[in-house]
Amino acid sequence: MGLKSFVDVSEGSHFPLENLPYGVFRRKASSEGADVARPAVAIGDYVLDLSAVAEAGLFDGPHLKGSTCFSEPSLNKFLEMGRPAWKEARSTLQKILSADEPVLRDNDALRKKCLVPMSEVEMVLPIVIGDYTDFFSSIYHARNCGTMFRGAENAIAPNWYQLPIAYHGRSSSVVISGTDVIRPRGQGPPMGSSTPYFGPSLKLDFELEMAAVVGPGNELGKPIDVNNAADHIFGLVLMNDWSARDIQFWECVPLGPFLGKSFSTTISPWIVTLDALEPFACQAPTQDPEPLPYLAEKTHVNYDISLEVSIKPKDHNEPSIVTKSNFKHLYWTVTQQLAHQTINGCNLRPGDLLGSGTISGPEPESLGCLLELTWNAQKTLSVGKSSRKFLEDGDEVIFTGCCKGKDYNVGFGTCTGRVLPALP
Amino acid sequence: MGLKSFVDVSEGSHFPLENLPYGVFRRKASSEGADVARPAVAIGDYVLDLSAVAEAGLFDGPHLKGSTCFSEPSLNKFLEMGRPAWKEARSTLQKILSADEPVLRDNDALRKKCLVPMSEVEMVLPIVIGDYTDFFSSIYHARNCGTMFRGAENAIAPNWYQLPIAYHGRSSSVVISGTDVIRPRGQGPPMGSSTPYFGPSLKLDFELEMAAVVGPGNELGKPIDVNNAADHIFGLVLMNDWSARDIQFWECVPLGPFLGKSFSTTISPWIVTLDALEPFACQAPTQDPEPLPYLAEKTHVNYDISLEVSIKPKDHNEPSIVTKSNFKHLYWTVTQQLAHQTINGCNLRPGDLLGSGTISGPEPESLGCLLELTWNAQKTLSVGKSSRKFLEDGDEVIFTGCCKGKDYNVGFGTCTGRVLPALP
Ligand SMILES: [Ca+2]
Ligand SMILES: [Ca+2]
Ligand SMILES: [Mg+2]
Ligand SMILES: [Mg+2]
Ligand code: NI
Repeated sequence: MGLKSFVDVSEGSHFPLENLPYGVFRRKASSEGADVARPAVAIGDYVLDLSAVAEAGLFDGPHLKGSTCFSEPSLNKFLEMGRPAWKEARSTLQKILSADEPVLRDNDALRKKCLVPMSEVEMVLPIVIGDYTDFFSSIYHARNCGTMFRGAENAIAPNWYQLPIAYHGRSSSVVISGTDVIRPRGQGPPMGSSTPYFGPSLKLDFELEMAAVVGPGNELGKPIDVNNAADHIFGLVLMNDWSARDIQFWECVPLGPFLGKSFSTTISPWIVTLDALEPFACQAPTQDPEPLPYLAEKTHVNYDISLEVSIKPKDHNEPSIVTKSNFKHLYWTVTQQLAHQTINGCNLRPGDLLGSGTISGPEPESLGCLLELTWNAQKTLSVGKSSRKFLEDGDEVIFTGCCKGKDYNVGFGTCTGRVLPALP
Repeated sequence: MGLKSFVDVSEGSHFPLENLPYGVFRRKASSEGADVARPAVAIGDYVLDLSAVAEAGLFDGPHLKGSTCFSEPSLNKFLEMGRPAWKEARSTLQKILSADEPVLRDNDALRKKCLVPMSEVEMVLPIVIGDYTDFFSSIYHARNCGTMFRGAENAIAPNWYQLPIAYHGRSSSVVISGTDVIRPRGQGPPMGSSTPYFGPSLKLDFELEMAAVVGPGNELGKPIDVNNAADHIFGLVLMNDWSARDIQFWECVPLGPFLGKSFSTTISPWIVTLDALEPFACQAPTQDPEPLPYLAEKTHVNYDISLEVSIKPKDHNEPSIVTKSNFKHLYWTVTQQLAHQTINGCNLRPGDLLGSGTISGPEPESLGCLLELTWNAQKTLSVGKSSRKFLEDGDEVIFTGCCKGKDYNVGFGTCTGRVLPALP
């Protein structure tokens, strides 16, 4: 059986002692005021306030003793400290939360100060994101999109097999799970005349992604070796790269996606660390052709993370599952992505976000966006008692991700957003 | 004749009393220490330390009195305050620097505290850049690139005439003028085999651009009207969007430029305000087809800014001019760019950078990058006693930009960078 905490962790919880994902929370507005944002880890149905743990002097290892990293309103300072500090935090937290350890368990006042029920908090964006990159690393997604728009013969361009294709996304509009998404307005392809369509997007979509959160960065001009790349990655989040397909298709030649993506990108509140994911590491797909030396890694792993997308239309009582995929399907690993991004000398900074690209799997039921699921609106997808080609106003899109162990889960919770109507 | 300051402003100076561009400086390392970065304006061969001016209580208008915006290490806080504060600062500074005004002129101690010779300071990046966007707004540049790679018939895609095409660039690697640029390594197209080239870029280029610096931003979901867009733009800088053409060409299908651009982008230290540029406003090119209503602006202006690029090879004593262009050639104006960028609800933040795209003019001598000047290395360009197809190690690239009035200039100074050899 798994590790045992004195905090109640229900069976199937995403947040047992083995996980301890990091986020930033605020107590919900109360008469007492005190709504400053500070770092926490999740345990069962509680958040553990790391500023309170630090204040109580419980971080007593060499890296964290006396550090103010948990008094910050974001995790960036902690991210910058690197793996030795992360390991130390994990071991301290697993110790003070364990069933055998009295320091919190038997100190009512301190325990109440440190452990706050999730129902009493609001999660906020856990990181300050300097730059956000979005990759394109699922071969199934690349093949499907290519087939749709260029035909099966030219589906995947030859560069795709040689490097993890990516583009820069918009960091200002990355929002936390639960934030409503206003349907964007913009130009779409001309429909029967030479004037483009203008108005609310008619092809609003989700993209099932995960993103790596960068820990220590690198200096401009100093690439990160692929075999050290894991030390620069703190953990992973769920990410919905909302996409307006009509806007995207019309604008993207020749410089790529822009307004079709920049209106909102949602991430989950909890960052699951690579340390917590390690038991779920699995061999990544064999790459053919072999990658160039700077992308050839000694440890070529993905993580076995089951992913699910549900849609809850406005008038439905329950969400309906529309796809099931897995992070392990990615052709290019996060370490290869990170090494590639820096090979030209580009500098990463703590808190930078590396999106995986849409995570489609090989089966028809494992496609990561409506564009693929409905083959660009040529088919309809059933959603409970309704059906969809693209998203409708009022739809709530819910991602969930979980590593399923024998005795416990290491989960990501959910990443959600509801579609609001466009501005008039 | 122009305005007269008690500070000596030589004829032809870029920085007379009519200009007063903003930057952030640090005194060069000295025994006294005191090398904290703070805002300044340029006047003649001096920088005027705005923190010292504020400390002396000379900002006495309603917006700036008591404000700490000039005690910051960047201009972001001042940018956020908007045009009323900018106008007030300009009028205060033009007054206290004028030949008739004794407050600084006749106070030796205060004058020495406030006015520092440029030779004694180092300029630093004046803004914290959240997101950096690069547009593609010169029709000459778009047509030349299109002709080179897709033939004259398909040179410009139909979307280009309907919207200001753009992509997100990398904000972490935006550097200040004078910073060396290490030749990036990366993948290029396969040459005679199926394996891509890997190594130092063989096609390193400059791109002659200017960039708009965003003042007050907008909330996510709330587009900025094109007719209010100018109030969200603080000013302009010179920008060199260094480009590795081989890396760019190989990677850019289907998601656009990435590592071919993200290794360095250089901006000039001085931000010239729209207020200082106003006398040089000129009608922007007529647009055909007419832009959609959200891009149709009442005041459709560019600025008449003469631009020059010189290259100084390592073994040359003098730089040689390689191109002369003008900001007024841009088809899409900065206000249209800004309105377009927010039409989908995307939020801008103070300090965001909107690059113009390569500013090529109609004549062969006014092309804004080596790709065009040498037609992708099919021709050679003479550079003094040498010649170039693309940049060589040791080359210094020098941009300069200036509005030439009858009695005075409003100039941008220079934007420079020297190419260092790639990592081994
Ligand atoms: Ca995506
Ligand atoms: Ca450019
Ligand atoms: Mg997005
Ligand atoms: Mg660049
Ligand atoms: Ni960015």
